[in-house]
Amino acid sequence: MVLVVFSGTPDRLLGMSVLVSGAVALDMEVDIYLMLWGTYAFLKKNLEKNTELSEHKELATQLSEGLKNAGLKPWYEILKEAKELGTVRIHVCGAAAKAWNASLDDIFLADDIVGATEIIDAAKNAKIALFI
Amino acid sequence: MVLVVFSGTPDRLLGMSVLVSGAVALDMEVDIYLMLWGTYAFLKKNLEKNTELSEHKELATQLSEGLKNAGLKPWYEILKEAKELGTVRIHVCGAAAKAWNASLDDIFLADDIVGATEIIDAAKNAKIALFI
Amino acid sequence: MVLVVFSGTPDRLLGMSVLVSGAVALDMEVDIYLMLWGTYAFLKKNLEKNTELSEHKELATQLSEGLKNAGLKPWYEILKEAKELGTVRIHVCGAAAKAWNASLDDIFLADDIVGATEIIDAAKNAKIALFI
Repeated sequence: MVLVVFSGTPDRLLGMSVLVSGAVALDMEVDIYLMLWGTYAFLKKNLEKNTELSEHKELATQLSEGLKNAGLKPWYEILKEAKELGTVRIHVCGAAAKAWNASLDDIFLADDIVGATEIIDAAKNAKIALFI
Repeated sequence: MVLVVFSGTPDRLLGMSVLVSGAVALDMEVDIYLMLWGTYAFLKKNLEKNTELSEHKELATQLSEGLKNAGLKPWYEILKEAKELGTVRIHVCGAAAKAWNASLDDIFLADDIVGATEIIDAAKNAKIALFI
Repeated sequence: MVLVVFSGTPDRLLGMSVLVSGAVALDMEVDIYLMLWGTYAFLKKNLEKNTELSEHKELATQLSEGLKNAGLKPWYEILKEAKELGTVRIHVCGAAAKAWNASLDDIFLADDIVGATEIIDAAKNAKIALFI
């Protein structure tokens, strides 16, 4: 499975992490490609303070309680656990890294920095490719 | 066709419904998987009052008139008609249902509640899989 | 590669253009299908003045400088260059064109106007299909 992660809002990243968990449970390999806002959200310094929702910002408190009741941890904890259990590689788009002036060490769980052709090549060969 | 519907804004859901109509016209089976905001938007109590656009909120009036001129009904009417004409199944992610404290009966046109592995399994076997 | 472009924010369209460039570099054919906000953003009169980001609007200045440092041009320049170098076709969803009261001539780089079944048919036969 290839996930091209353009978005960086914590709700969409929670959706990403849930899908990654499902794929790992099915023994699928997962390659995540971080583009602009995905890279921003994965910056270690932003992990916890990046809390703006993608929609219905006025429901933040209700959603936060609902997710707790549903037993869902923050997206980065779910992703970390999935990466420990299965094969999950996290690649950073080089242009996005440059735009945020970030090196590989600044980015949560990141494995390497890649170019656009590598994203396309991976998506072409994947059984599932989604743009998030 | 598998549509993983994370978003719940009425404009993106209109896009979803137009694609579902197209697939039904081509005799394709469609499986819709509702994630966080998708589930929220499909709550029967929210259908009509969930009007916030995904972008350019200042164009709401102009867009509303434009869509009327283009002959487009609201997304939920287009979807209902497509479901009557073809094979359209609507699945709800269990974690999303719990987060909104909703049961199957609360959710518009919903057929069943599923887990993340079922979403991935369906996407893997689909000719088209899109994340909306 | 088929890109179903629903969104019209310049940041998501930059992501689109980067992926198109990558596909062209790999000699892949690209078919872009503009839906609602995609069509709006491609209106020639909107190209340069459509500057609202999809998220973190407060970072507009920082992002703009970061993108300049990363050597990235605006999305429409990257797309134009990719279309000159490779096979990139741009199709407009008929309903979206009507909603914005636009003809083919009003839309940047557009090749033709199509219906929803043509989008689905193209996605079904593509090696990669993404919803942006």
